[in-house]
Amino acid sequence: MKIVIIGTLDTKGVEVGFIRDEIVSLGHTPVVIDPGLLGRPAIPADIPREEVARAAGEQVAELVAGGNKARSQNAMIDGLVKVVSRLHECGAVDGVVALGGAQGTAMATAAMRALPVGIPKVMVSTVACGKSTFGPYVGTKDITMIHSVADILGLNQVTRRILAQAAAAVVGMAAVEAAAQGEKELVAITQAGITTPGVMAIKERLERLGCEVIAFHCNGIGGQAMEELILDGEIEGLIDFSPHEIADLLFGGLMPAMPNRMKAAGQIGIPQIVTPGCTDILLHGPPGEVPEALCQRACVQHTPTHTHVRTNPEEMAAVARFIAGRLNGGTGPRASVIPLRGFSMLNRQGQILYDEAANMAYVETMRRELSPEVELIEVDAHINDLEFAEETVRAFLRLREAAARKAIYS
Amino acid sequence: MKIVIIGTLDTKGVEVGFIRDEIVSLGHTPVVIDPGLLGRPAIPADIPREEVARAAGEQVAELVAGGNKARSQNAMIDGLVKVVSRLHECGAVDGVVALGGAQGTAMATAAMRALPVGIPKVMVSTVACGKSTFGPYVGTKDITMIHSVADILGLNQVTRRILAQAAAAVVGMAAVEAAAQGEKELVAITQAGITTPGVMAIKERLERLGCEVIAFHCNGIGGQAMEELILDGEIEGLIDFSPHEIADLLFGGLMPAMPNRMKAAGQIGIPQIVTPGCTDILLHGPPGEVPEALCQRACVQHTPTHTHVRTNPEEMAAVARFIAGRLNGGTGPRASVIPLRGFSMLNRQGQILYDEAANMAYVETMRRELSPEVELIEVDAHINDLEFAEETVRAFLRLREAAARKAIYS
Repeated sequence: MKIVIIGTLDTKGVEVGFIRDEIVSLGHTPVVIDPGLLGRPAIPADIPREEVARAAGEQVAELVAGGNKARSQNAMIDGLVKVVSRLHECGAVDGVVALGGAQGTAMATAAMRALPVGIPKVMVSTVACGKSTFGPYVGTKDITMIHSVADILGLNQVTRRILAQAAAAVVGMAAVEAAAQGEKELVAITQAGITTPGVMAIKERLERLGCEVIAFHCNGIGGQAMEELILDGEIEGLIDFSPHEIADLLFGGLMPAMPNRMKAAGQIGIPQIVTPGCTDILLHGPPGEVPEALCQRACVQHTPTHTHVRTNPEEMAAVARFIAGRLNGGTGPRASVIPLRGFSMLNRQGQILYDEAANMAYVETMRRELSPEVELIEVDAHINDLEFAEETVRAFLRLREAAARKAIYS
Repeated sequence: MKIVIIGTLDTKGVEVGFIRDEIVSLGHTPVVIDPGLLGRPAIPADIPREEVARAAGEQVAELVAGGNKARSQNAMIDGLVKVVSRLHECGAVDGVVALGGAQGTAMATAAMRALPVGIPKVMVSTVACGKSTFGPYVGTKDITMIHSVADILGLNQVTRRILAQAAAAVVGMAAVEAAAQGEKELVAITQAGITTPGVMAIKERLERLGCEVIAFHCNGIGGQAMEELILDGEIEGLIDFSPHEIADLLFGGLMPAMPNRMKAAGQIGIPQIVTPGCTDILLHGPPGEVPEALCQRACVQHTPTHTHVRTNPEEMAAVARFIAGRLNGGTGPRASVIPLRGFSMLNRQGQILYDEAANMAYVETMRRELSPEVELIEVDAHINDLEFAEETVRAFLRLREAAARKAIYS
């Protein structure tokens, strides 16, 4: 198998050489890429820095002479992403392994994030510890981060072992047979703790019907990862049951959607259902950190670090307008399914987050805004009631049939 | 090989079972540990929850009946750490793989952090993304974090692949032969960008003398990881060349040492040299975030996110007292080596961080406080001068000889 190795060969050439030799001794083919610019490469690269710079439309000599560190680094990141993406398009990437400090990790993980989920991506990093956050490195992908413990500054008993393990890990991961794809239909569902009973009921029913279900947490990252997998063609149907991230995007909560959220399914044309599950709360920090303007609202402390704040009628109407706009702009069979008795666990008659006016603002906006092309289904049940799950699955099966008919006649 | 699998069998039993089967199909022996408490285990455990609770001196029935979630979870973490540590002591842990959400990741990585560096530790986690920080999970260890992308809520094409890759990774890593230990003497050195020339010169000389050198970054985590490796008996000598973390500990910088810093070498009795490398700066955020009281001092913006603030004479005296106290309390051959012409790159005559009075406060305190048992060496050079590196290596070789003599006559 072909294993891409990324590391700056001026400062970390010896360590990259060690990983290369490990890959060879495990019986595989290393492809060394050098995005370094500082000094002379300590070992030869298969894809040297000149080629990386050229992919970004730059020249190494000019980048070095320019003396603008930020610009040079951005150019090398850009080039590296392009080089690795092209290699992947040619089928020449069975796995990627890289090592680096802060800058090396930023560069190599940028290239990893450009690869689809499922291609092994192993990053040995000095900065995978302490107060660093995962987000900038991992993004929405299945990136494997290994803390190097010691500085990557020469080989010794500890670094040799960690680097050899990283090489063994990527080779082992690359040897995993691709999961039998296409055998079962993969249906995505979005979920949160406060809609889990509904999600579990739908999942069970879909699995009984022979589908596979993949759940994404509505924490911003989950929704974005799902959209990317839909665009990659991995997912054949969507029940967007808990699009909470839309509310946080529109009104400044802690886990906002990316602005392109809820577009992919409509673009690809797979069956798509949207319910208003947990669009009825805004996520904020512990009680002391809830914005003053929201403190008079109904609130629930969900965990020690998170408070759920109830949305008001204007906000629910805005969320409905956003969702209706997305559904109207889609191309496949799609439906809005609404549980009239409440949108999340504590938004149910008699519970603290129940607000009929706010719920109805969503319903009425949806009735008004939704294009006739999109099915609108109102169910006299709560989002977590079995009856709602059954109605949602029935709607999904109708959309699926419509998609199948369309496929036959088109 | 024996691969420990950790996961709560009530909520994630199916996924744990899948990893177990993968480990078996790769020809190895799984040991499933269940730290769950919520519902019934979906598959049988090799070490069931009852045994985990018992290791913490608790009973499952009482923890469940007590209804105190935080207490139950802490008890299960405590029990899990003990169970895994005992298995490791019996030689029954060639690797660990775990999966979980926020709580599952907290539990499993606590057990991983209790294992020495070098034992493969693979964590598949829903929270290895976004704003989560590495620190609470990784600590000072070589923990491998894999972002699960989708929720761990059933098996599908995506989760099966990621879980199978995690199983393959831990097996591959466990198959790496232990680096030939004991063949070469391993000497630790602490470093930072502003002492790198000195570190590189020492490293080169020590390697020529047949040692291996392992560098640790003085970012708080690095120093702590080094102390732990010393206590584990992995390191045979220490040149604590850049103990900057002490200044941040004493005066509130961004990368403080743990309070037990600089104790391990003295406790184990390995040769130990301390220089004042980069104890002459306090680390703070970008210019706008430097505490007001420090704004009048000499400052250098080191990176877009970090500013170096010069320490004053009182602070340098306090750092010297701390270091002298540690050296005085040690048991092995040890020395304080001081570069009289400055302690870091820009603390050199004519440069912005040079402050002779502050430097001399360190020197005079050290002269006064250091016990006669500890060698005090003053060198009329800068910390990054070749002359200082050579003097430091000579001192190290003397200490090493003294240690060898002591070993022979004791």
